[in-house]
Amino acid sequence: MENDAVVGANHESRTTSTITIKGILSLLMASVGENYDDSKRVISLGMGDPTIYACFRTTSVAEEAVADTLHSHKFHGYAPTAGLLQARNAIAEYLSRDLPYQLSSDDVFITCGCTQAIDVSIAMLSRPGANILLPRPGFPIYELSAAFRHVEVRHYNLQPEKSWEVDLDAIEALADKNTVALVIINPGNPCGNVYTYNHLEKIAETAKRLGTIVIADEVYGHLAFGANPFVPMGVFGSIVPVLTLGSLSKRWLVPGWRLGWFVTNDPCGTFRKPKVVEVIKKYFDLLGGPATFIQAAVPRIISQTEVVFFQKTIDHLKHTLDICCQEIEDIPCISYPYKPEGSMAMMVKLNVSLLEDISDDFDFCFKLAKEESVIIVPGTAVGLKDWLRITFAADHSAVREGMKRIKSFYQRHATKSSKQ
Amino acid sequence: MENDAVVGANHESRTTSTITIKGILSLLMASVGENYDDSKRVISLGMGDPTIYACFRTTSVAEEAVADTLHSHKFHGYAPTAGLLQARNAIAEYLSRDLPYQLSSDDVFITCGCTQAIDVSIAMLSRPGANILLPRPGFPIYELSAAFRHVEVRHYNLQPEKSWEVDLDAIEALADKNTVALVIINPGNPCGNVYTYNHLEKIAETAKRLGTIVIADEVYGHLAFGANPFVPMGVFGSIVPVLTLGSLSKRWLVPGWRLGWFVTNDPCGTFRKPKVVEVIKKYFDLLGGPATFIQAAVPRIISQTEVVFFQKTIDHLKHTLDICCQEIEDIPCISYPYKPEGSMAMMVKLNVSLLEDISDDFDFCFKLAKEESVIIVPGTAVGLKDWLRITFAADHSAVREGMKRIKSFYQRHATKSSKQ
Repeated sequence: MENDAVVGANHESRTTSTITIKGILSLLMASVGENYDDSKRVISLGMGDPTIYACFRTTSVAEEAVADTLHSHKFHGYAPTAGLLQARNAIAEYLSRDLPYQLSSDDVFITCGCTQAIDVSIAMLSRPGANILLPRPGFPIYELSAAFRHVEVRHYNLQPEKSWEVDLDAIEALADKNTVALVIINPGNPCGNVYTYNHLEKIAETAKRLGTIVIADEVYGHLAFGANPFVPMGVFGSIVPVLTLGSLSKRWLVPGWRLGWFVTNDPCGTFRKPKVVEVIKKYFDLLGGPATFIQAAVPRIISQTEVVFFQKTIDHLKHTLDICCQEIEDIPCISYPYKPEGSMAMMVKLNVSLLEDISDDFDFCFKLAKEESVIIVPGTAVGLKDWLRITFAADHSAVREGMKRIKSFYQRHATKSSKQ
Repeated sequence: MENDAVVGANHESRTTSTITIKGILSLLMASVGENYDDSKRVISLGMGDPTIYACFRTTSVAEEAVADTLHSHKFHGYAPTAGLLQARNAIAEYLSRDLPYQLSSDDVFITCGCTQAIDVSIAMLSRPGANILLPRPGFPIYELSAAFRHVEVRHYNLQPEKSWEVDLDAIEALADKNTVALVIINPGNPCGNVYTYNHLEKIAETAKRLGTIVIADEVYGHLAFGANPFVPMGVFGSIVPVLTLGSLSKRWLVPGWRLGWFVTNDPCGTFRKPKVVEVIKKYFDLLGGPATFIQAAVPRIISQTEVVFFQKTIDHLKHTLDICCQEIEDIPCISYPYKPEGSMAMMVKLNVSLLEDISDDFDFCFKLAKEESVIIVPGTAVGLKDWLRITFAADHSAVREGMKRIKSFYQRHATKSSKQ
């Protein structure tokens, strides 16, 4: 091969169509920099990382547990690549609390955050001709992983007018014998949906009928604050094999600790065949995994965190969401078809016809960043043109100030007729 | 697809030929269990994880740096996927000390240990028809990664009688236009080789002539205690592009912290083309990466660790290696063609003709585990049948006792003629 072709030529085709939220956020931030005004601090309602706000701080229980395992000198060495046994056990037990059957440590593989769990699940299912069904709007890491792992992506729509439920007819139409999995994200990113027991059961039955499996991204698990309680997809593991992906990141407010999991919810044993287990284990030999001492702290983190800590986060999110929704009422160019019941983000519809010099969601977000130092994600980045993704995991004043600035931005750009 | 085919069928062909050291070690440990004698503690001279011995403890500087970043509450959130800027800078500066040019933070990508750096480099170079040149004996994670990433493996021999140098003629014969990289491990695992400046320069020139690049696995960087000083391959980055892989794991004795790096040593800019950089960055979006607070501690860990800490490790390894070599002199069925000058492992030739009921290296290691509770790795696991890999990163008494038991094992299994 020629040196100057070294990396990349082979990947070129895979990357042109993939957008990452992080990539767009950094472009938006750069755009703020161009016209930065000292009087206006940057307000980010763009990223699912609440830790930039001091009000979202993890519990001291978690921090002390990690400090203790660090100082114990017992966990400076390698962990087994599938994860430290005590951590796998603790996660199995934690997830089993909400299931009609008991998971074992063998069902749990520890990953570097949910991101790596996503990539592992897609890499594991990859084979020539394989396709995967992804939600639109969704989370672009799935598309990126599918591109690198040579899996064809087929999008099904989430339905805004039906609480962003899965369009099951679309699923039936899209799937074929090469469909290796149906992905759902619940509680939803970017829509804030929390699916009912009945809807999840229908998803399981549909997947079963189609002979495929379900990948359930539950990284926002338990972050539900509306009418529907959070129901893990694993509840329907006897109907269809489920791969559950999750992490400590959101519920414990420690995304930087990179402690995630890839879990087989599979009481019928599909994933427990020796050959399948062997392949998964070997794949984990390549991954690196999270720090051993952080893994070692997991049992204590899970068992000692008090409900009041979780409740505080829920209350806070509920409140900032209320502020968001209230302010949106006063901004005619945006509206929401569904008020989130979980997670940390919502999708808002943008009506560009009410704006004079804004061509689309991208244009809106870049001008907003430049003029108002407010960062939100254009819907196109998550699959829906002329929508916006707003993250409400911020402190009260940031949400209020951010929305206020979006309102002034609207007023400055509104068409004459819409102002009347 | 059918549920019962879910994972694995597609991977079947990739896994039959791949052996992992961890897999063999756990079989060996299980074999100890069968006949466990309380009077004989298990002695592991099998794994490159010195932290199981109390004498190999990391410096308090490193531990305090990590505790401080944990408690600062500034690093509970996501790091950029390529790594925290201050950590990339610190690693660039650290590696540049030994180079004739200066690396920048853009050259450094932070990985979950060197294991993930290996997999990233192979995944990045993968394309239809690609092949990679790997050393024999070597480190099986390369073969495993190549299998999962669809890259053909071609082995070149290391030459025991020439200080385990690379057989450059073999390289010339094996390479073709689809050869995407030549991998070297220096200081060497499993051979303990430390290559001279001249030999490394020849490797660079050979790779250049063949139009390929060099992947330099320097996870044991600076762990050299013989006549040849450690010279990083990046010194020859202007001759040929070099990807340097490394980590804190071995030199700082913290393999469980999972802090590794993938570095482009490439003053001519081959890897700096926008498209190449974009692909690498997007790939890192999938990986997860090490914990943010551990990354944040890297600048202090690198700048404040004192030379005396490194020297203590070197002195210890030199001493345990001496014990090992001395004891081997008394065991006729094993011998070493080269006394290691670096790393933590050595290759020892097994002469089965001197043993009555031992058929090969595997048989030797399993019977040794069962009868003597001593764990060493059969050479077949690293590519050389009827050799043994002995790790000398253990405490003095473990090495001495382990070798003593190997001697009794020999005496019990020796042919009559060899005893005379």
